[in-house]
Amino acid sequence: MKLSIERGTLLKAVSQAQSVVERRNTIPILANVLIEAEGNTVTFRATDLDIEVLDKAPAQVERAGSTTVSAVMLHEIVRKLPDGSLVTLSDDSAAGRLSVQAGRSHFNLATLPKEDFPVMASSDYASNFSAPAGMLRRLFDKSKFAISTEETRYYLNGVYMHVSDGEDGKVLRCVATDGHRLARIDAPLPAGAEGMPGVIVPRKTVGELRKLLDDDDMQIAVSVSETKVRFATPDITLTSKVIDGTFPDYTRVIPQGNSRRLEVDARDFAAAVDRVATVSSERSRAVKLSLDEDRLVLSVNAPDSGAAEEELAVAYGDERLEIGFNAKYLLEIASQVDRENAVFMFNSAGDPTLMREGNDMSAVYVVMPMRV
Amino acid sequence: MKLSIERGTLLKAVSQAQSVVERRNTIPILANVLIEAEGNTVTFRATDLDIEVLDKAPAQVERAGSTTVSAVMLHEIVRKLPDGSLVTLSDDSAAGRLSVQAGRSHFNLATLPKEDFPVMASSDYASNFSAPAGMLRRLFDKSKFAISTEETRYYLNGVYMHVSDGEDGKVLRCVATDGHRLARIDAPLPAGAEGMPGVIVPRKTVGELRKLLDDDDMQIAVSVSETKVRFATPDITLTSKVIDGTFPDYTRVIPQGNSRRLEVDARDFAAAVDRVATVSSERSRAVKLSLDEDRLVLSVNAPDSGAAEEELAVAYGDERLEIGFNAKYLLEIASQVDRENAVFMFNSAGDPTLMREGNDMSAVYVVMPMRV
Repeated sequence: MKLSIERGTLLKAVSQAQSVVERRNTIPILANVLIEAEGNTVTFRATDLDIEVLDKAPAQVERAGSTTVSAVMLHEIVRKLPDGSLVTLSDDSAAGRLSVQAGRSHFNLATLPKEDFPVMASSDYASNFSAPAGMLRRLFDKSKFAISTEETRYYLNGVYMHVSDGEDGKVLRCVATDGHRLARIDAPLPAGAEGMPGVIVPRKTVGELRKLLDDDDMQIAVSVSETKVRFATPDITLTSKVIDGTFPDYTRVIPQGNSRRLEVDARDFAAAVDRVATVSSERSRAVKLSLDEDRLVLSVNAPDSGAAEEELAVAYGDERLEIGFNAKYLLEIASQVDRENAVFMFNSAGDPTLMREGNDMSAVYVVMPMRV
Repeated sequence: MKLSIERGTLLKAVSQAQSVVERRNTIPILANVLIEAEGNTVTFRATDLDIEVLDKAPAQVERAGSTTVSAVMLHEIVRKLPDGSLVTLSDDSAAGRLSVQAGRSHFNLATLPKEDFPVMASSDYASNFSAPAGMLRRLFDKSKFAISTEETRYYLNGVYMHVSDGEDGKVLRCVATDGHRLARIDAPLPAGAEGMPGVIVPRKTVGELRKLLDDDDMQIAVSVSETKVRFATPDITLTSKVIDGTFPDYTRVIPQGNSRRLEVDARDFAAAVDRVATVSSERSRAVKLSLDEDRLVLSVNAPDSGAAEEELAVAYGDERLEIGFNAKYLLEIASQVDRENAVFMFNSAGDPTLMREGNDMSAVYVVMPMRV
């Protein structure tokens, strides 16, 4: 193998690939990136056995071939090379080394045989469709905060992507919950996604996917089977196993009859929650919301360290209500609101509360109250 | 006590004070800041028993008095208040609470009696002088990287500030070393500093002091005794115990007769060292410098992972030399060079090497070689 490639192009391709590599792993080949050169293209492939990322980049290929080298080391080297360099990669398979050359810098990196590299088995995808990056970004960005980190409830360690019924027909829906709060985000169902099986996309995959979604107008090719999900741009293909489990029936958790409506500026609300929570050093800080006509008092009482109270002007027309929440959960859902006021729908102090942006039902959050 | 103060002014004063408070400490009063209001001034005092910081700020004092509250909590609250707020602090000593009020936010913080607060004993300072902030910043910034972290050699856990003989007469000198490398930085001796006892300023004090030195032209009042050192601006007074030990005789470590002179662009040199060191994952990475006429080859050989080599055009007119160094040490001293080329003076591959900026003897670095 011998090829030349512009440093910036190489850096981008290797960055994407190396980020999937686990820093601590006991199988040496998994620390490596598989480099394959042919025609006028070079591909970089990395995997942790659950996720595989494949990056394509244009290169001047002088001699086709393939090898594997440490993903992190190659990335570090390329990152440190001066911008604008032309980098030459050439493989001396007899010596088991890959030569990396740029300007007056010359590196010889240990390789492992490409035959040892675990390439993810291909899959028959039941469903293939195309979705704009901006839409997928919204679906995952607004739901991922609610992913559970409890390993025993492994089926909650991801975002449940599936087809469902929305207000105006079928939707592509992402749901995440950890039992304390839940996020349910809808988007118009892309053509071709009707028969898509519901899949739980693991947390790490959601993180890696995010890097493909920066360009709003890019169309992402999505393929879904019972066991795998694949997201692809023209240059990058991210394939991931999905979580082998059943996502619980979340619909029962979403309150339907909550009628007490509070409307509040989300930014002011979040800032006030953040301030009053300061006086408590406990991990699960309870904030009490005391509602009266057009008036919300947030308060925290921590006997050891002090007390805090803040009043906000709000729109509220129902009878008096006192209800407590974990401050962190309130902050997280309030920070999802970006366009309009936050609307909270309460029932009683013991029932789950619903939050949404204005009257938009395409992003709905549920949070369980705490006794205060 | 009752006073009103502008939020920005309060934040600045409390920030300085709280940074000296140790996050984990078993003595509750040490987590607190002592607030004292009198006349039209409020002071904030915090200590870890080794360092004391005292911040003065203008305030409308309605009722003089004093109390102590959690430094971190007060800082967090003030930080989260909207910019431009007027903050009212009022002490209800019967209830043992400090009320903090701003706009519609109201906090009640637990206090501890001011009598419990350990105020650092005053000291007779043998020497008092004034020095520009920019000068002190240079002395400490360029030497602190060489401070030892080995607790057994506690007398190396700081910067040795003392009066010495420079090239052109007496100088104020800062020296730090960990036995592997050494930094010796000189500045013109300020008037009044002649009789100053040499003191070892602890690492944490150097860090806290740094925050006082941002304004180049500010004059810093420095006071030194055998046991304490004090740095003061009009608003902030930082008092610290010095390390009770004898700094070793560093002059013997600084090579006098090194005659092989290498001159190199410090930035290019540092970038090249950083690149070649990438191939080794060990903590103490040895970089080999191979010198020949006007040519420097940097190389690293890590049998497991690979090898790297880079050539630099340099000014060197002496005979061939091969010498190895810890990559991290080379990078750190090269990054101290800001104005001119780095000049290295070598003797043999086994002898300490000297580095300076151009021909400037007011900042001199020594680094021990490694066998390669």
